[in-house]
Amino acid sequence: MAIDRRDCEAQDRDDPLAVARQRFELPDGTLYLDGNSLGALPRGVAERVGRTVREEWGRDLIGSWNTAGWYAAPGRVGAMLAPLLGAAPDEVTITDSISVNLFKLLVAACRMRPDRTEILAEAGNFPSDNHIVESAARMLGLTTRFVAASEIASAVGPRTAVATLSHVNYRSALMQDMTAVTAAIHAAGALAVWDLAHSSGAVRLDLTASGADFAVGCGYKYLNGGPGAPSHVFVARRHQAAFDQPLQGWFGHADPFRFDAGFTAAPGIRAALCSTPPMLSLVALEAALAAFEGIDMARLAAKGRALCDLFVSLADERLAPLGVELASPREGARRGSHVSLRHPDAYGAVRALIARGIVGDFRAPDAMRFGFAPLYIRFVDVFDAAEAIRDVLGSRAWDDLPPVEAGAVT
Amino acid sequence: MAIDRRDCEAQDRDDPLAVARQRFELPDGTLYLDGNSLGALPRGVAERVGRTVREEWGRDLIGSWNTAGWYAAPGRVGAMLAPLLGAAPDEVTITDSISVNLFKLLVAACRMRPDRTEILAEAGNFPSDNHIVESAARMLGLTTRFVAASEIASAVGPRTAVATLSHVNYRSALMQDMTAVTAAIHAAGALAVWDLAHSSGAVRLDLTASGADFAVGCGYKYLNGGPGAPSHVFVARRHQAAFDQPLQGWFGHADPFRFDAGFTAAPGIRAALCSTPPMLSLVALEAALAAFEGIDMARLAAKGRALCDLFVSLADERLAPLGVELASPREGARRGSHVSLRHPDAYGAVRALIARGIVGDFRAPDAMRFGFAPLYIRFVDVFDAAEAIRDVLGSRAWDDLPPVEAGAVT
Repeated sequence: MAIDRRDCEAQDRDDPLAVARQRFELPDGTLYLDGNSLGALPRGVAERVGRTVREEWGRDLIGSWNTAGWYAAPGRVGAMLAPLLGAAPDEVTITDSISVNLFKLLVAACRMRPDRTEILAEAGNFPSDNHIVESAARMLGLTTRFVAASEIASAVGPRTAVATLSHVNYRSALMQDMTAVTAAIHAAGALAVWDLAHSSGAVRLDLTASGADFAVGCGYKYLNGGPGAPSHVFVARRHQAAFDQPLQGWFGHADPFRFDAGFTAAPGIRAALCSTPPMLSLVALEAALAAFEGIDMARLAAKGRALCDLFVSLADERLAPLGVELASPREGARRGSHVSLRHPDAYGAVRALIARGIVGDFRAPDAMRFGFAPLYIRFVDVFDAAEAIRDVLGSRAWDDLPPVEAGAVT
Repeated sequence: MAIDRRDCEAQDRDDPLAVARQRFELPDGTLYLDGNSLGALPRGVAERVGRTVREEWGRDLIGSWNTAGWYAAPGRVGAMLAPLLGAAPDEVTITDSISVNLFKLLVAACRMRPDRTEILAEAGNFPSDNHIVESAARMLGLTTRFVAASEIASAVGPRTAVATLSHVNYRSALMQDMTAVTAAIHAAGALAVWDLAHSSGAVRLDLTASGADFAVGCGYKYLNGGPGAPSHVFVARRHQAAFDQPLQGWFGHADPFRFDAGFTAAPGIRAALCSTPPMLSLVALEAALAAFEGIDMARLAAKGRALCDLFVSLADERLAPLGVELASPREGARRGSHVSLRHPDAYGAVRALIARGIVGDFRAPDAMRFGFAPLYIRFVDVFDAAEAIRDVLGSRAWDDLPPVEAGAVT
């Protein structure tokens, strides 16, 4: 029996998380399915950033490093975020970009396995991760090996110092079993560095129970921290004493205001910091996290899965006849909170959808990617998106549309 | 003959740059002499950041990477900044923090001298720089040697791959002759990496004429880009083709949206980028640079020197009898735009001054540091500051004042 829009309306009425949508400033006329690239603007962020600019910076000036809590902000915001990751508050901090942080973690982890010669990494991971893998290996004199995410557990071996992969793949949304893969990596004597870019804020994470050693994540996707929001870093408490990362700057120093010539790493997670954080971007992320207040992450992840399940069902029912293929796992338990579809006309279709205010993104050569951020996407949105995709693929009305350029920053 | 406040008022009346002060939102009741740590808030920045949050992010969402020019922003803002540095527009970009960028440049420069074994660096430089020097050398298997800035030119030798130092020292304000020191470094076959943290936006720079190879600088001091504003990077055009830096992320890729597994560096200065920039902090810096519109940098530097000369004269006349010693060069041509004074009670005096709204900073064990940002500091401010210092040192009224904590982020 065909899925009906009224069924979706009923699901929205029954959704205990529906209220969270009110925490966002969503523009009229846009159906936004790209929260996996850039999360929507949470209410309160503009006010907080404005206050930071006018009062903390403009009026209180340098004193705000203390009085406005700027100095403590990386750890404070990290501690706020930690419950969303299933980590302890003193295991998470906010700093730099995800690629810069991955470099720190890979080098630090390899230094903990000095007798090993290889970094094992996920073929098909977000390319920036693997560019950093290559660079870290080059600097450390190690080899690299790239295998599919599904093969990491079997490929990890006695030469492997570190294995790194994404928890949720940026294209396919394939989600790894973090506990099982980490256990396999540990069984081989190696360390696990997880990329949570498409996980944090969207799917259930329990870094502690999963045994993860290190992780990086993204502030501007499902955490809604704003364009280029700083990244988060997780270092398991058991590794913090030996943590020795290469971007050792004064913000990671045990006593930065002594201005010692020599470097002594700060105890704990602060050693993951390098230098003065971009405060306007950092306070935006802090204010954005308020959108998660009182939200049960298991329930949020379940909603995300239900949204994606609905989209997959609609794609099967209404889009497969037009030649659309599912490029994400069918099984919800193995999928993050976005869905990729393949079609030869994906590029045209994405542009035609954007022209109608339905925003997903295109990934060459033939993928349409739609993110279903469970904090603010409704079941009717999923229905409407699927109908619009059907419509644009049927009408093929994209020849005169402007190109999609660099736009979609994953 | 004693310096008179009316003389200072006259200097302000005659100052063709006095109008620039109107470009800042300066709080009433504060005499702000810490613009060398955190520059004051320029007018227009709050509005621009607010627009970026509400319209570009909140309303236009992911599309703003193209339509609002986010994607091009690092290079665009770099090109705006380039004239202040005496560089070509395609030699400067904005990215990451100064310490992270120094790591990139040191590694890239050392790779251009593969037969050499040493990084030569400035003893007494801002410690974060030298922490990064140690880390880069460790990763590259090189040795380090630290000598006073004044000895770099004579200490550089046939083993030296790279010499790195600050143009203006963060404590003493001692300014190097960039042309002469760079020439000496080149004569030894090495490359020069300059730290412009206390130079950019305050003193005359001509990176091209000086022959500089590489440089990093700070967005949040004299450029007034806001707390933790992203740093700038200069790579001389002649080195760009061979530029090979280790934090190779997707923003430095020649074609990031092809999502190639392999890394191909972008041509030109873009290869200095790593990953998605913190846009709120970056647009704040862009808007802040409007405060420099139409300002002749030679004239601005001359005003900064005149302000500092006045302060040195006042210190000689009124503070030396109280035991204050000048800890900066007396000769204006060898000094940046701040002045450090030494006194056994410096810690108490700085706190007492802050309690009166006169904001400088303290550098252990006994230095008071006062920055004279020539865009918004007046000659009467210099006079009033010197009088206040004399007053607090005379009254010694600091016992009950709160401690100065982490506050002063250099």
